[in-house]
Amino acid sequence: MDILNDSYYMSLALDMAEKAAGQTDINPIVGCVVVKDGRIIGIGTHLKRGTGHAEVHALQMAGEEAEGATAYVTLEPCSHFGKTPPCCERLIDAKVARVVVATTDPNPQVAGRGIERLRECGIEVEVGLLGERSNQMNEKFNKYITTKLPFVTLKTASTLDGKIASRTGDSRWVTGSAAREQVHTLRHQHMGIMVGIGTVLADDPQLTTRADVPALHPVRIVIDSSLKLPLTAHVVTDRTARTIVIATEQADDAKAQELLTAGVELIRAGSGEQVDLPEAMRKLGELEIGSILLEGGGKLNGAMLTAGLIDKIMLYMAPKIIGGAAAPGTFDFEGFEKMAQAIELERTQVEQAGADICISGYPVYRHV
Amino acid sequence: MDILNDSYYMSLALDMAEKAAGQTDINPIVGCVVVKDGRIIGIGTHLKRGTGHAEVHALQMAGEEAEGATAYVTLEPCSHFGKTPPCCERLIDAKVARVVVATTDPNPQVAGRGIERLRECGIEVEVGLLGERSNQMNEKFNKYITTKLPFVTLKTASTLDGKIASRTGDSRWVTGSAAREQVHTLRHQHMGIMVGIGTVLADDPQLTTRADVPALHPVRIVIDSSLKLPLTAHVVTDRTARTIVIATEQADDAKAQELLTAGVELIRAGSGEQVDLPEAMRKLGELEIGSILLEGGGKLNGAMLTAGLIDKIMLYMAPKIIGGAAAPGTFDFEGFEKMAQAIELERTQVEQAGADICISGYPVYRHV
Repeated sequence: MDILNDSYYMSLALDMAEKAAGQTDINPIVGCVVVKDGRIIGIGTHLKRGTGHAEVHALQMAGEEAEGATAYVTLEPCSHFGKTPPCCERLIDAKVARVVVATTDPNPQVAGRGIERLRECGIEVEVGLLGERSNQMNEKFNKYITTKLPFVTLKTASTLDGKIASRTGDSRWVTGSAAREQVHTLRHQHMGIMVGIGTVLADDPQLTTRADVPALHPVRIVIDSSLKLPLTAHVVTDRTARTIVIATEQADDAKAQELLTAGVELIRAGSGEQVDLPEAMRKLGELEIGSILLEGGGKLNGAMLTAGLIDKIMLYMAPKIIGGAAAPGTFDFEGFEKMAQAIELERTQVEQAGADICISGYPVYRHV
Repeated sequence: MDILNDSYYMSLALDMAEKAAGQTDINPIVGCVVVKDGRIIGIGTHLKRGTGHAEVHALQMAGEEAEGATAYVTLEPCSHFGKTPPCCERLIDAKVARVVVATTDPNPQVAGRGIERLRECGIEVEVGLLGERSNQMNEKFNKYITTKLPFVTLKTASTLDGKIASRTGDSRWVTGSAAREQVHTLRHQHMGIMVGIGTVLADDPQLTTRADVPALHPVRIVIDSSLKLPLTAHVVTDRTARTIVIATEQADDAKAQELLTAGVELIRAGSGEQVDLPEAMRKLGELEIGSILLEGGGKLNGAMLTAGLIDKIMLYMAPKIIGGAAAPGTFDFEGFEKMAQAIELERTQVEQAGADICISGYPVYRHV
């Protein structure tokens, strides 16, 4: 049972924010609940970059009642003029008495200044309530705002013996419909979806978000070192979402021009034979792609992992064993010599997804 | 993981509504989420009787974007002029394309007419999504709006052998702090709290809501057939909340006058020696007390149960055995002859509350 205390309201603010995951671009997801004399008097959540912040919506609903109220905000109210005026000033103008903040804003433009400003104005501020949940909820934002690099979530679907297809290449289907529904929800919640050219050549996927309701389509990103992408591929022709192809500087200019004419965007990263993945990430960050769902085959997964570029791993495992030494695995790379060198996941979680299992965690890179 | 579909948004609407439980008087708790092109564009919840309904707040946040959107509403939008104009018309004016409704409104003034009206105006309406949860969330409202009788939740705390105190009457404490925090949350979520005069004489309780945050105090209702309530009792003197005493028509007029002068309200129910509990419930209903948390001793619990007046039971059980045939039990009444006559609970649920257990369910009355 849910107990009436500060967490009672903060968890509502977090719930509201979480549902807006994926729709705030590079902005954080934030919820706000305004409470006075034992009643909720206003609720709000940040819905879209460039539009009202959570506090603004909630204070609007509360109206003049906000005077003397407590505001629960999942993230430190901003103190700077961004695309909208600072929320601190709105809270001060509304004369709230107390602000409970789940976490400080890692944005260097805020980073404690919002809390300081509220306290200067005599508002009681408490920080840290359900902070861990708020932090995890904004893990994509937190990385991007501090590094300007996209947060990369690797999603893969394999058998219990770590195979993503049979030795003949058959992969329809590894996991069941529940896991596939989760993947489409993950697409809605990321700004980009990334695959290698091998996946495009083999499956010609749409890489769009198919859910029971309209959903947001991430930018499609194809790692295609030598520009093998056919002009007839779905990701080129269907125009459902933007497509960015990443090639090396060596890749053929004429083919590049054809792709550009077909409406595909092009990034060049690296002068070698293979795309320079760290540089590719930096360039995607410059384009304000704040998060990427990596749905690569074994090669791209292995390259991204050994480059230390994957932030989170979500391994869907179907309860079956297929065998076959040649059957492709989740991560195709040289491998470490010693077991002790293996990349471990921390903060692991296990969840059921229909008959399948999802193991998630955050890789710890000691070798990079 | 939460899958992106209609339930994704409806469950947010339900979460928001649930947190407002206890603050909407005899009104239902309702949440609304407005979604368009894969984005939440407005959220709202009904916060207080006489103020904006959930749809109004959510449409306000959505603004002109609402045209063509889908609105998820936990309860059928009202079609009648109550304390506010009908929400149907707001949805129609906002030109939403689709309305997903969790449950129809059992209010005889609505009861399907809201849905009919929306459909007449060419809006696509779907009904029933997460309807069971929405119905249970408004179980208090649903009973009151259809019967004008309060919904009664019995809460008790006992040992594993069903004792609410030792044979010497010692009852500090049966359950732990987690269970006690839940009880204060239950008080916040009910309009009235009811005890027998025996409890007041023995413990002189405050019967207020003590939570970590400010909370709402229910009206205190004391079943006191012959007006033994001392003028010095907390419930008379502290004025933290209203107090209603229910006595028989025989009860002393002079004492009644003293209590009235002290600020206590008085209801007379029944001409016999004991309060006529069904009549008391009807009169409380007339005073718009839509829900009651019954925290009686064994006698009142037994009388309310055998009269078929308890709608829901929440039995907190501490993992201990105290023994003693004379130790007071949860329900003190004559008892049925046959085991088959026992009052069974349906839709039972078990939850842990710290070291204690809460078993809840809905009594099925076959004998009444």
